Amino acid sequence: MELVKMGQAAREAAFALAVTPTAQKNQALAAMADELDTQAERVLAANALDIQAAREGGMSEALLDRLLLTPARLAGIVADVRKVISLDDPVGSELESRVLENGMRLSRRRVPIGVIGVIYEARPNVTIDIAALCLKTGNASILRGGRETFHSNMALVAVIQSALAKVGLPAAAVQYIESPDRALVGQLLTLDQYVDMIIPRGGANLHKRCKEQSTIPVIIGGFGVSHLFVDESADLVRALDVIDNAKVQRPSACNALDTLLVHEAVAERFLPALAARMNERQVSLVAAANAHGLLVAAGATGLREAGPEDFDTEWLSLTLGVRLVADVDAALAHLREHNACHSDAILTNSLVNAERFINGAGSAAVYVNASTRFTDGAQFGLGAEVAVSTQKLHARGPMGLTELTSYKWVGQADYLCRS
Amino acid sequence: MELVKMGQAAREAAFALAVTPTAQKNQALAAMADELDTQAERVLAANALDIQAAREGGMSEALLDRLLLTPARLAGIVADVRKVISLDDPVGSELESRVLENGMRLSRRRVPIGVIGVIYEARPNVTIDIAALCLKTGNASILRGGRETFHSNMALVAVIQSALAKVGLPAAAVQYIESPDRALVGQLLTLDQYVDMIIPRGGANLHKRCKEQSTIPVIIGGFGVSHLFVDESADLVRALDVIDNAKVQRPSACNALDTLLVHEAVAERFLPALAARMNERQVSLVAAANAHGLLVAAGATGLREAGPEDFDTEWLSLTLGVRLVADVDAALAHLREHNACHSDAILTNSLVNAERFINGAGSAAVYVNASTRFTDGAQFGLGAEVAVSTQKLHARGPMGLTELTSYKWVGQADYLCRS
Repeated sequence: MELVKMGQAAREAAFALAVTPTAQKNQALAAMADELDTQAERVLAANALDIQAAREGGMSEALLDRLLLTPARLAGIVADVRKVISLDDPVGSELESRVLENGMRLSRRRVPIGVIGVIYEARPNVTIDIAALCLKTGNASILRGGRETFHSNMALVAVIQSALAKVGLPAAAVQYIESPDRALVGQLLTLDQYVDMIIPRGGANLHKRCKEQSTIPVIIGGFGVSHLFVDESADLVRALDVIDNAKVQRPSACNALDTLLVHEAVAERFLPALAARMNERQVSLVAAANAHGLLVAAGATGLREAGPEDFDTEWLSLTLGVRLVADVDAALAHLREHNACHSDAILTNSLVNAERFINGAGSAAVYVNASTRFTDGAQFGLGAEVAVSTQKLHARGPMGLTELTSYKWVGQADYLCRS
Repeated sequence: MELVKMGQAAREAAFALAVTPTAQKNQALAAMADELDTQAERVLAANALDIQAAREGGMSEALLDRLLLTPARLAGIVADVRKVISLDDPVGSELESRVLENGMRLSRRRVPIGVIGVIYEARPNVTIDIAALCLKTGNASILRGGRETFHSNMALVAVIQSALAKVGLPAAAVQYIESPDRALVGQLLTLDQYVDMIIPRGGANLHKRCKEQSTIPVIIGGFGVSHLFVDESADLVRALDVIDNAKVQRPSACNALDTLLVHEAVAERFLPALAARMNERQVSLVAAANAHGLLVAAGATGLREAGPEDFDTEWLSLTLGVRLVADVDAALAHLREHNACHSDAILTNSLVNAERFINGAGSAAVYVNASTRFTDGAQFGLGAEVAVSTQKLHARGPMGLTELTSYKWVGQADYLCRS
């Protein structure tokens, strides 16, 4: 199908969804969950085709694992859809309401954004996930998954379409771009007449392409070097546990710790303990010149001196940059130089330094005496996570259902004219 | 100065402004207002140079009037700056705050957006206006005014710089791109490493260029065909006053009425009265085939039949499109076909139709029994207007100080690890 036609159909569907009651949207989600249950075998068979093709194409085991659907994983996806049903529908609520001096009752009412384009890579769960979240918030969606997940996505989209039909919602509420032609991504990115927002879910290159080519607002996110600053007054024993958690619990996550900044006044006491803990956890340290000697003396294994780009690197692995800094302002200067925009933490007992760090860090999420690993929709109690934004417009940090909405101004009066 | 260096300097300044107390920002604004008062002659002399050059270049009287500064207009600009001082500073307030089950106190705190690029056309008042609003909200700004206002803007920027210096704020808090080289606009639009938001203030071409070329989020707005639907149950006498106000009060405004939709059941009664009023107000009517005959019979002067693009035209003049529709749904269908996105109204006594129109219209502002002319920051009581957004992300409709802010998540705990 031509992309322009998909856009037109999506826009029409969006108008219908905007006035669809929550109950009907929830029925569609329930039908989707039921259908996923009953068609599980078909979905798994389709996924097996993708896995086979990917394995023959030489895909790495790590990526194969992201692509793989198992009965348990599928059950998890079904459970997630059922959870979306239980979340509050943000659409229709009033953000504010007041009566102007001229008697007009003016309010801002939450409305769906309209049509959302989603471009994503290997994971097939995104298809159901994002379709469910868009549907719940009354948005039409146009999905474009990775080539590797073609069969899985076709099976999942069939499930979605069947669910939409069952409750009488337009099929164009959720559309999928089937053709593998990469030029279609470029076309989607400039379909600004019909599409209101683009969400890329994938690597840095995908985000870069969207930023450069899209004439539609894009949610940029998912990356960022995360920092933790151990201040002079930090509890150095408990600090180790927080660093350990931030670095080791899930090193591949975007909120995992990348760079540890240590106040120079506590370096001699703290670095030996750090080296021991990181050795134990098999974390390789990449040390700035001012920390390197102390770490060598402390017997850190897998240690190397940092090069110019190391402090701009998101490791996504068991590697940790370490640097000494003179004070909280020097820590903040490091954050600025290295463009901190995601999750950053300070460990301190100083109220002044905590507040200084909170206000001075340019990050989407700032923590005092906590791990950077908390930046996550579920951890924040949002109920769902659409994406993690690192830009400053519209939404910042974990985005839930509310961030899939906009608002309109509603003015009601008695044949009022502007004077 | 190289644009990259301006970007770097702006970013540095933005970090400083983010932690500048409101009192100091207000001092800068007060210094700006005082300086404008004392340097009024210099500013007016600079403006006279621009006016002279523009007149010699053959600029139309209407555009010359937009460019012209008079002592009274300058006093108005000063008054506007003093008014910004009196507005609440949104920065630092908490949007929400709660304690998670794990004990973390999680809040969202309002923060400046960072660096804002503003590209605008002839009016010199925008220079002071936007600089003041950005400063109040702790944002650094990079301004690029029209070539025609060069001397005026240089004088105004000197005033701003002098005010910044007086209160010890960085000069890079407000920067101006002096070179007339148009390629610099393109460079500004891709300076995404340093600039967080682009606000275009000008014609449709400027917005189009920004949308197409910018890798930075852009606030699109200021245009849109405005509609008013006279429902069957409308008070047809008072309806005339509202239509008159919406069309005639300021036809060049973006919220002025462009298309009037009339319920066919009241057409025979209403169109004669409409024709008489519009004749009186020298409004030319552009009628769809289904309204044309009735308007001819009613003696409408300056009437013509509508062509295919007339209902997609923002008139900005004393012209009004007229079409009959079968009901509220047909009116909404017309709005959708013609991409209503700005300000639209229904005149009705039907609660059902009012609610249907509010929810079904895709507009930034929807009115029941009121003129479309109210879409305006001052009318909405926002205290200031940065722009009127017609897109759905970040902000919609009139944008005030709050819309120049973002938020950050702040999590505070007691050495908390994610389990």
